[in-house]
Amino acid sequence: MQKKTQGSPNVVVIGAGFGGVKAAKDLQKIGANVTIIDKYNHHVFQPLLYQVATAELSVEDIAHPTRDIFKNDKNVDFRLAEVTGIDFNRKTVTLDTGTIGYEYLIIAAGAQSNYFGMESVAKNSFPLKTIDESVSLRNHILSRFEMAAIEDDTAKRKALLNFVIVGGGPTGVETAGGISELVRFVLSKEYHHLDFSEVQITLVEAGEKLFAPMHESLRAATVKYLTKMGVQVRVLVQVTDYDGERLTLKGGEVIETTTVVWGAGVRAVELLDKLGIEQASMRRAVVNDYLQLPHNQEVFVIGDATHFMNGERPLPMIAPVATQMAAIAVQNINNMQKGKELKKFVYADVGSMAIIGRNYAVMTMPNNGMTTHGFIAWMGWLVVHVMRLVGFRNQATVTVKWIWDYFSKERVAALITRTHQHSVSRDK
Amino acid sequence: MQKKTQGSPNVVVIGAGFGGVKAAKDLQKIGANVTIIDKYNHHVFQPLLYQVATAELSVEDIAHPTRDIFKNDKNVDFRLAEVTGIDFNRKTVTLDTGTIGYEYLIIAAGAQSNYFGMESVAKNSFPLKTIDESVSLRNHILSRFEMAAIEDDTAKRKALLNFVIVGGGPTGVETAGGISELVRFVLSKEYHHLDFSEVQITLVEAGEKLFAPMHESLRAATVKYLTKMGVQVRVLVQVTDYDGERLTLKGGEVIETTTVVWGAGVRAVELLDKLGIEQASMRRAVVNDYLQLPHNQEVFVIGDATHFMNGERPLPMIAPVATQMAAIAVQNINNMQKGKELKKFVYADVGSMAIIGRNYAVMTMPNNGMTTHGFIAWMGWLVVHVMRLVGFRNQATVTVKWIWDYFSKERVAALITRTHQHSVSRDK
Repeated sequence: MQKKTQGSPNVVVIGAGFGGVKAAKDLQKIGANVTIIDKYNHHVFQPLLYQVATAELSVEDIAHPTRDIFKNDKNVDFRLAEVTGIDFNRKTVTLDTGTIGYEYLIIAAGAQSNYFGMESVAKNSFPLKTIDESVSLRNHILSRFEMAAIEDDTAKRKALLNFVIVGGGPTGVETAGGISELVRFVLSKEYHHLDFSEVQITLVEAGEKLFAPMHESLRAATVKYLTKMGVQVRVLVQVTDYDGERLTLKGGEVIETTTVVWGAGVRAVELLDKLGIEQASMRRAVVNDYLQLPHNQEVFVIGDATHFMNGERPLPMIAPVATQMAAIAVQNINNMQKGKELKKFVYADVGSMAIIGRNYAVMTMPNNGMTTHGFIAWMGWLVVHVMRLVGFRNQATVTVKWIWDYFSKERVAALITRTHQHSVSRDK
Repeated sequence: MQKKTQGSPNVVVIGAGFGGVKAAKDLQKIGANVTIIDKYNHHVFQPLLYQVATAELSVEDIAHPTRDIFKNDKNVDFRLAEVTGIDFNRKTVTLDTGTIGYEYLIIAAGAQSNYFGMESVAKNSFPLKTIDESVSLRNHILSRFEMAAIEDDTAKRKALLNFVIVGGGPTGVETAGGISELVRFVLSKEYHHLDFSEVQITLVEAGEKLFAPMHESLRAATVKYLTKMGVQVRVLVQVTDYDGERLTLKGGEVIETTTVVWGAGVRAVELLDKLGIEQASMRRAVVNDYLQLPHNQEVFVIGDATHFMNGERPLPMIAPVATQMAAIAVQNINNMQKGKELKKFVYADVGSMAIIGRNYAVMTMPNNGMTTHGFIAWMGWLVVHVMRLVGFRNQATVTVKWIWDYFSKERVAALITRTHQHSVSRDK
């Protein structure tokens, strides 16, 4: 049913994350016919998923309907579908609902959790990559307290109140901080008969340090803050197995816990494994300087799915990398159409930041590498993240909620939903 | 683990709806030891469930954690559990998680959908009594449009775009109006290649008239408004069967539709059927003038679950009835404790209102029975409902959203969630 504008290239974009949305927006500006495909009907602000998991924000605050983003872009067509394959020779993308041809293709399919082959951990721990996963984790955490409130067996109760977060990167640190706040500021007031000294929150990291790529002073400040918040930080701890009740560490130590959050590993989406293309660390696609697949120059890969060296290290999986890549990929499609020379991708550093607590963040400035932490960094984090949220209404309500949270230490999103699974089984 | 205050009665409240919450709040004021039980961890503002189903509000806007409501009431203990039985002789309530004894019991367990024995309708239509059901309906409606957008078979596409709402009471009327707005103001802008003249929305009512208890002028205004909004209103139409694709009416007519919303019947919760008590129309419990069970005077029944005659008709299932009954039940418990005379329940009419569209409502004033409709009634509805929402933050964000909706005709809650059912199967 797609109407094609004559003389404009047909471009398919896989993925409606930061990279895909930016690419589709830029593509419609150069007059391309765009089809953007995603398996969810909404664009997600991934950096805030942990705030849904810790009942600070509602789903609607960090997710926005993708069709709404393109409602005024008549040349952008959205398809709710899962990509199952790509035929580079025929130039077609195969979906679970059909097939689409392309002249140019932008793969912005993102990343997924990586369990390094540990199936028991994949099955029983909670990842934090999608809206559904963050709601599942929220329901699970809140349910553990409900169960603990009526559990007379001390050992069982302690296992219910033991929360282990695996991975010392931003996701792990932010989630550990968020759970600690939820427990200390909210739940401890709501359970009148529970002994909160039995609650334990542990952040474990396989390497020597938290936030490995960040400046030493920020890492020390982070550990200090988390410890003050009652989070036990353990480094050089490697997980080997988790059956849902017993978490086994390398060396044989066993932790009795009913909640393990997995923030220890990501990899490019599995779709890439099927394409017969060269993949580097974290299974990311190797591209040339112009972000093209070396053997299929009408195919671009951008964002988390892309392996692109920046000095000695590949670029991190963050939004600014994805959006900058999207801009270059679209420029190069335009240049190819017009027979112009292609532009090389060069990353412009925008710094990095992570939030740890209700008024505590760490931040590295771009270019000069200056660092700051504490309240100023937290304000900076708040401004940058609110600014980036898609849609005015989201910004307004998120800001109201954060300000309210800040002064009240309340969490009105502490809902356990989906208690009746049968009622939703008919949905796609 | 409940600590009992000496000399204070132990009171168990079943249900944390409007009636149950009001009762527990009043009970702690008279110094009772209260246990309030609900199968959800949140209090729901039921009159707005249809706004979640039509993507106007998010779940967090109309649901509030019950524990938060009682966080400063140390004598009120919340239990997340389902009540499976009551032993009036032993004075115990049986839960799926244990047993609780009581001196006084307030049953505020509410109502559920009534399919009048039509199992196929119960299985395949969408009710609107809980948060989960409203999210299911939202996911379902939005998914129908995604499916229609790629459906080439005209008959199948029309069935996907055919929405039938059964029941001409407030739920049916409000939902029909809400779906019409979602389609006309939001989805029609987001699907660039779908023919929206194929969308059909039908409200069917078994009786002669919509809003049977309301004034004739309001009923006429409602039909006129719905018709203007493109909703086909059909009266004297009775549903007999629905297999998920074909809705069969009495007389044999068949409507091809993949979405049937059930707002045609309610009844008191099934729990009452197990208690061996006298039940009247809609299976509601018969109580005496003091809201007690005639044969168990330490047991009170309030709200939707209660059959209480007001003139020639039983009182309707609305929040003001429940909260007024809660106040009297608690007063009478206090009077029984003190050996005082009990107080009879007399309902103070507060009027009735229903919203039909983005700036259209109907309203009957209390006492004088004056009616109004249109924008003024809509403003009145907005004020009353925002005022009643529990918790300041909810009010602030709901108001922001409604105002934003009003001017933008946007729906940022148009999310299809729960696409990965497997990830939540471990939750309670």
